[in-house]
Amino acid sequence: MCPPVQMESNERALLNGMSPLLSLLIIGSLHLASTERPMKKTLVFPVATDTSYVELMPQKDLSIASFTLCMQLATELAKGKREIILFAYRTEQFDELNVWRESDGTYQMFMQSSKNGVSFNLPELNTIQTHLCLTWESQTGMAAFYVNGKRSLRKLYKMGHRVLPGGRVILGQDPDSLLGNFDINQSFVGEITDVNMWDYVLSTAMIRDLNDGKWVPRGNIFDWETINMKLNGNVTLFSEDL
Amino acid sequence: MCPPVQMESNERALLNGMSPLLSLLIIGSLHLASTERPMKKTLVFPVATDTSYVELMPQKDLSIASFTLCMQLATELAKGKREIILFAYRTEQFDELNVWRESDGTYQMFMQSSKNGVSFNLPELNTIQTHLCLTWESQTGMAAFYVNGKRSLRKLYKMGHRVLPGGRVILGQDPDSLLGNFDINQSFVGEITDVNMWDYVLSTAMIRDLNDGKWVPRGNIFDWETINMKLNGNVTLFSEDL
Amino acid sequence: MCPPVQMESNERALLNGMSPLLSLLIIGSLHLASTERPMKKTLVFPVATDTSYVELMPQKDLSIASFTLCMQLATELAKGKREIILFAYRTEQFDELNVWRESDGTYQMFMQSSKNGVSFNLPELNTIQTHLCLTWESQTGMAAFYVNGKRSLRKLYKMGHRVLPGGRVILGQDPDSLLGNFDINQSFVGEITDVNMWDYVLSTAMIRDLNDGKWVPRGNIFDWETINMKLNGNVTLFSEDL
Repeated sequence: MCPPVQMESNERALLNGMSPLLSLLIIGSLHLASTERPMKKTLVFPVATDTSYVELMPQKDLSIASFTLCMQLATELAKGKREIILFAYRTEQFDELNVWRESDGTYQMFMQSSKNGVSFNLPELNTIQTHLCLTWESQTGMAAFYVNGKRSLRKLYKMGHRVLPGGRVILGQDPDSLLGNFDINQSFVGEITDVNMWDYVLSTAMIRDLNDGKWVPRGNIFDWETINMKLNGNVTLFSEDL
Repeated sequence: MCPPVQMESNERALLNGMSPLLSLLIIGSLHLASTERPMKKTLVFPVATDTSYVELMPQKDLSIASFTLCMQLATELAKGKREIILFAYRTEQFDELNVWRESDGTYQMFMQSSKNGVSFNLPELNTIQTHLCLTWESQTGMAAFYVNGKRSLRKLYKMGHRVLPGGRVILGQDPDSLLGNFDINQSFVGEITDVNMWDYVLSTAMIRDLNDGKWVPRGNIFDWETINMKLNGNVTLFSEDL
Repeated sequence: MCPPVQMESNERALLNGMSPLLSLLIIGSLHLASTERPMKKTLVFPVATDTSYVELMPQKDLSIASFTLCMQLATELAKGKREIILFAYRTEQFDELNVWRESDGTYQMFMQSSKNGVSFNLPELNTIQTHLCLTWESQTGMAAFYVNGKRSLRKLYKMGHRVLPGGRVILGQDPDSLLGNFDINQSFVGEITDVNMWDYVLSTAMIRDLNDGKWVPRGNIFDWETINMKLNGNVTLFSEDL
């Protein structure tokens, strides 16, 4: 949950010169900030930019041989328009772990490279929230996506590989250097919430439970309940009741 | 529920010179008319025309500053083929409130204009029934679609505007005058059921309940249980058990 | 359930020179073969070929005037790429009963012909399992698809027709003769499971129950629990826990 005080100052700052979508969302969060109900926080990227992004501070180094990464996404950028970066973990040298929605509507994961990713033909992203998870395990190289709790075909990718520490995780932009060299035509536009990451592979049953709002172990790399984020540029965090 | 007597006369009339789809549906309704089970009525537009439409008689004037409009839709007209009118409220002067599925698959709402609508990238319509709702509120201008109970991103549209009374509501055609000037290439082909409309914004939880078949307050503009309709041209109302 | 002994020999044979997807799945099944948990078997067609197919041995002749055919499908072959054969029942003379995903993403059923099928605009197949059923009844000619338990619009097709016995049922290829003349560009690539077929039309409620994993009468033409299959070429049967 984002602290109310910080939110209110964000809101005031943003009330000048913001987009219609943004102002709407802030009206919503102002209204809701006065209640005691359980709240859900969501990142809003209202327009395409090459400057706006959110850095996520992991609870531990991304020195990992397996992972589960989940998030909820909604976007107006339909298939056929352009590619969209969904998650970027970049070190000085490499795109260590990137997840993309390609312009043809497929999804792709890249490890330690921006070439030779592994591609999946999933249902299309749209303006309704999609619950997306991605699992990968070094020992077998097994990779799979989950959409709204249902698993994709599994594919082999980078068996024996290990994700290296020392980089930065951002949402909203694809960095071609550590935290820079962004391209507006790859930026994310829309809403992101429920970003969670584990350094192990959750079972299919757990990911179905997560999608259904049931209890699963909290993410030990990112836990959306307690996550530490740095917002940069035209991106805002709003809360609404569940 | 449509009255059995009227249905039977409809059916007999339509058994001459009707389309294969139509005849099938009538066979179904004849069979079902003899039972006591709870029935659901559905409008069938079997072919594209510039003459077939259904006028809906509202329970109160459409002089409204907010609304929720819901309907279930199924169509064989895939994205990429052509635009489809989903709902039209037309006064002498204006398209007061129109809802479209555009040819690129997006959805668009227009108020008091056929230009400058607000567009949403929703899941595609297809031959499986889609439960679609649209909410709008003048005070904030907030608009949102719901597909099968799940909300889209919200957008601002026509803040402070008011829908004016004195028009006519039709399904199946886009009127460029009060009840005329139809275009076959904009007509609806497929099935429409569960058309309900309220003069206020239902909560996300209520729209989820409506999609799940749970109780919500009945529409005070249109209530599909008791709605008064006038069928024109090659369109029929059939009933089947729930 | 495939017999464990046969599976293990399959697995050993396939560990030499197999595709990455295949090897992954075998690792999974080796692991699972040692448990006592309830298992689900799935056919995997890892790559496009004009040689790999699975023949299904029906419990009774396909001399039928109505049917329900169900299966679960997952594929990476997106719409726009090419057509895919989903089910083929071929006699010496005819394609008695074929089901296709066309290249434009629509689905088509053909009876006793490879022309003049009946077409449906359904949600797209993708790498997430889709539960697909198709019903047809000679008396009315009524045909309908069901996707994940939800019914399509109904259409009339081949009223009064009867499916003739004496042919062979295969998955994976479109035979232009009894069991031959395959075309690599029509082959199925992906996973198929839960193939069941009845010589009557299941109700909408039953098909919804089947999709929800509830009890329905077992298929009397094909019953996936006890089905007898012959695997040919690069196709494998693996089991995983439910």
